[in-house]
Amino acid sequence: MFSSISNTVTESRFFVMPHDSNAIGRLHGGVLMEWMVSAAALCGVRFSKGEVVLAALDDLFFMNPVSVGDMVVVKAWVEYSGHSSMEVGVSAYAYPRIVGEPMLTTTSHMVFVAVDRTGSPRPLPTKIKPTKEEEQLYSLAEKRAEKRRKMLSDRKAMSLDISEYGPDARFRMKSSHLVASSDATMGGIMSGGKLLHLLDEMAGAVAISYARTVAVTGAVDSTSFHYPIRQGSIVDVELVLTGVGRSSAEVAAKVITENPSSGVRRHAATTFFTMVAVDSAGKPVPMPPFEPSNEGEEKRLREMRTRREDRQRRLKEMQIFEPLHSMIAHGRG
Amino acid sequence: MFSSISNTVTESRFFVMPHDSNAIGRLHGGVLMEWMVSAAALCGVRFSKGEVVLAALDDLFFMNPVSVGDMVVVKAWVEYSGHSSMEVGVSAYAYPRIVGEPMLTTTSHMVFVAVDRTGSPRPLPTKIKPTKEEEQLYSLAEKRAEKRRKMLSDRKAMSLDISEYGPDARFRMKSSHLVASSDATMGGIMSGGKLLHLLDEMAGAVAISYARTVAVTGAVDSTSFHYPIRQGSIVDVELVLTGVGRSSAEVAAKVITENPSSGVRRHAATTFFTMVAVDSAGKPVPMPPFEPSNEGEEKRLREMRTRREDRQRRLKEMQIFEPLHSMIAHGRG
Amino acid sequence: MFSSISNTVTESRFFVMPHDSNAIGRLHGGVLMEWMVSAAALCGVRFSKGEVVLAALDDLFFMNPVSVGDMVVVKAWVEYSGHSSMEVGVSAYAYPRIVGEPMLTTTSHMVFVAVDRTGSPRPLPTKIKPTKEEEQLYSLAEKRAEKRRKMLSDRKAMSLDISEYGPDARFRMKSSHLVASSDATMGGIMSGGKLLHLLDEMAGAVAISYARTVAVTGAVDSTSFHYPIRQGSIVDVELVLTGVGRSSAEVAAKVITENPSSGVRRHAATTFFTMVAVDSAGKPVPMPPFEPSNEGEEKRLREMRTRREDRQRRLKEMQIFEPLHSMIAHGRG
Repeated sequence: MFSSISNTVTESRFFVMPHDSNAIGRLHGGVLMEWMVSAAALCGVRFSKGEVVLAALDDLFFMNPVSVGDMVVVKAWVEYSGHSSMEVGVSAYAYPRIVGEPMLTTTSHMVFVAVDRTGSPRPLPTKIKPTKEEEQLYSLAEKRAEKRRKMLSDRKAMSLDISEYGPDARFRMKSSHLVASSDATMGGIMSGGKLLHLLDEMAGAVAISYARTVAVTGAVDSTSFHYPIRQGSIVDVELVLTGVGRSSAEVAAKVITENPSSGVRRHAATTFFTMVAVDSAGKPVPMPPFEPSNEGEEKRLREMRTRREDRQRRLKEMQIFEPLHSMIAHGRG
Repeated sequence: MFSSISNTVTESRFFVMPHDSNAIGRLHGGVLMEWMVSAAALCGVRFSKGEVVLAALDDLFFMNPVSVGDMVVVKAWVEYSGHSSMEVGVSAYAYPRIVGEPMLTTTSHMVFVAVDRTGSPRPLPTKIKPTKEEEQLYSLAEKRAEKRRKMLSDRKAMSLDISEYGPDARFRMKSSHLVASSDATMGGIMSGGKLLHLLDEMAGAVAISYARTVAVTGAVDSTSFHYPIRQGSIVDVELVLTGVGRSSAEVAAKVITENPSSGVRRHAATTFFTMVAVDSAGKPVPMPPFEPSNEGEEKRLREMRTRREDRQRRLKEMQIFEPLHSMIAHGRG
Repeated sequence: MFSSISNTVTESRFFVMPHDSNAIGRLHGGVLMEWMVSAAALCGVRFSKGEVVLAALDDLFFMNPVSVGDMVVVKAWVEYSGHSSMEVGVSAYAYPRIVGEPMLTTTSHMVFVAVDRTGSPRPLPTKIKPTKEEEQLYSLAEKRAEKRRKMLSDRKAMSLDISEYGPDARFRMKSSHLVASSDATMGGIMSGGKLLHLLDEMAGAVAISYARTVAVTGAVDSTSFHYPIRQGSIVDVELVLTGVGRSSAEVAAKVITENPSSGVRRHAATTFFTMVAVDSAGKPVPMPPFEPSNEGEEKRLREMRTRREDRQRRLKEMQIFEPLHSMIAHGRG
């Protein structure tokens, strides 16, 4: 069976309540990510006719702030289908006070794998066959899928790296939690959205404790999930400040999951948050300059600078696919 | 086994937190409905000695506003028992700032069906046998049960109507969601209270986007649930503004559920919300007048006017059973 | 297998959001208790390599207020291990606005029992073997464990006492709820933290309705759980004001659980909350004096005075173990 891309579009709405927002009334990046992952998962479930798990996501650049009282509409569609994995394009629009003109908040891609009851991959029952108008979108998605193949083949090796991240960092926090059934999807795997929400909250705390101002999520780097986190297991999260720009700080987040009965620990994911220091009006303010104080901090600062350049490059790539996303999201595919 | 009505009374308390309330500090109608359904379900579980599902509810007229800091006491009792279904009477009282005198917020009836582990109806182990004082209450409930029988026999036919509601409406919103296990009762069926909460939130957004003021829930029409929504399935909700009165708008809400593996779609429920435009003090303010712009809008406006008359009639019926409810709720049965 | 105490330390972080706080921006005691139990349970799960249930907790004295915007760090460690039960030491520190110096909010002990899939106790795979520095801590824990043995042997008898608590009290509230799967741990037992949260909310309401001011949780007495509350069952909670001091009131909370299919009712727990009347700055203010009006109230007032003396004694005991807890929590074990 075949489907066009535009035929897979789903739409989910969310309302920004006071408890979704920070001290200055701005929607937490973590809440928005949780909404986007749940909306994209719905799209994946409908397309694949069954349960899906989040395997990877591309960068999320948060372009416009969202505030209490706004409505968020998340559109999602399948851009590319492989054997059992699919790439879902996803855009979040904010409608100020519900009645205002929609503003694009962020647009990105998420990769989901269709799984059976045991969590093993299952073949997709439908393939994407783009229409003429969708061909450019499809071919870009196909190229991304090829790039990701390498990354996915490293999955097992990556999952074994359970070393501590930046043990010599001065600005770090860790926290451990049990994964409850309410954190998990139907298949018993921790929802990727809940995990990102937890990490975002912690990354914000690291940035705030460094900058001593309010900090908001500016971006989250592309991330792959090396190992599924099951309900009933433990997650250990480590957050480390790696470096600081003019008004933003990068915070690395590493996630280790532990099976309590076997004691086996696996590296589930590592990602990088860009947190922006803001004043009470939400305007960026300078961060205190960061001077590395040991070899580890120097190394992480160098790596952070490389990632920042890569991130700028990917932000430019977004300008290529953004109009194509807009076309699909607005039903002009 | 037999029980009087007053012997089945249960009492549940809830505290109105800031996150339960809207921009002007008023309790969301959707949250109150969720509380009422959960309290009534508890009463049904205790009476039927097992799991229950919500099959129908009568009109909810919200008579007094509830605010942050108030305590809500929900009393529920079984008024009538059939073979496997029971009618639960339910009243919600608000205690301003916990210490104030209780005010009746709303009183209504909900029909629950006792089900076994597979979701099939099971016979009730106990029957209601009213005391002398309860006879009028019982006989009114019996008459409602007879009326509902016709409606329930249409259940299957209704569930097949998966047509779009008002596709030509100018004021409409739709949203899709996956039903998580935390949205479901022990038997894996989506809680009727959670569904009403979701619909209320969306109905509010439709009214706000039309009126461009705060809108609060004035009433919800009697509703029957044609088809159970299982955890893991998709719900598609469509909300359509059908017409406008002086300071209120009617919003229709249609719910379609989709089994992702089979792709089978069923009409789960349709209901109608009366949303009232209010100022920051909670006083009703005029809605912009509504001029139908096409045939569909004209038809829906006519239907809305008929429903409004029926609703006024049912509001008068409430004045008959309200003192009887009060007698039971206050232990004077 | 053996482990030192310091080798079992876990750390969990929580962020105080507006919806976690009361009218004057203070963290609800019930939310803090829920966090502490979940952090201590995580420690118990990791140590015992499987599911645990909360069997008892020692007094919680809340020494410093926690406010919206603060970060709470909960440290937990196993102080003593028996055959299948373990005592977990737990300390909660508040970091004002995330950046401030940590303040000890409360420190106490919780007893967890390692259970298998059916909820039956299972032997611990590891035993605590204290280091030289930990010997005093261990020996105090051992003494507490001996004292608790008597209490645990009364468990069955206690669970049969399903009498109403203080039916003749003028200041009482009751409430009934169904236990949802999202209230339960993986093994299907209601989380002790969720139960304490519910009781704290109700105890606050009883104190507020008596004092007609804001009331905050000053302390919770040591509590044992006589009977597990399973998901799908009913909890009936009864709260009774037993007596009043200068600016505090004691509220008794009794919990009955009912299996809906069998109708069997069991006494799950009784505990006592000390609620403090405060002004809008959080400063204690006088409570209206309490005059007992019947024999039951007189009896409960006498019992309350005895408990108050015992509580003062236990508060002094805390000053003995608090520095030992601090040593472990700060990695100086």
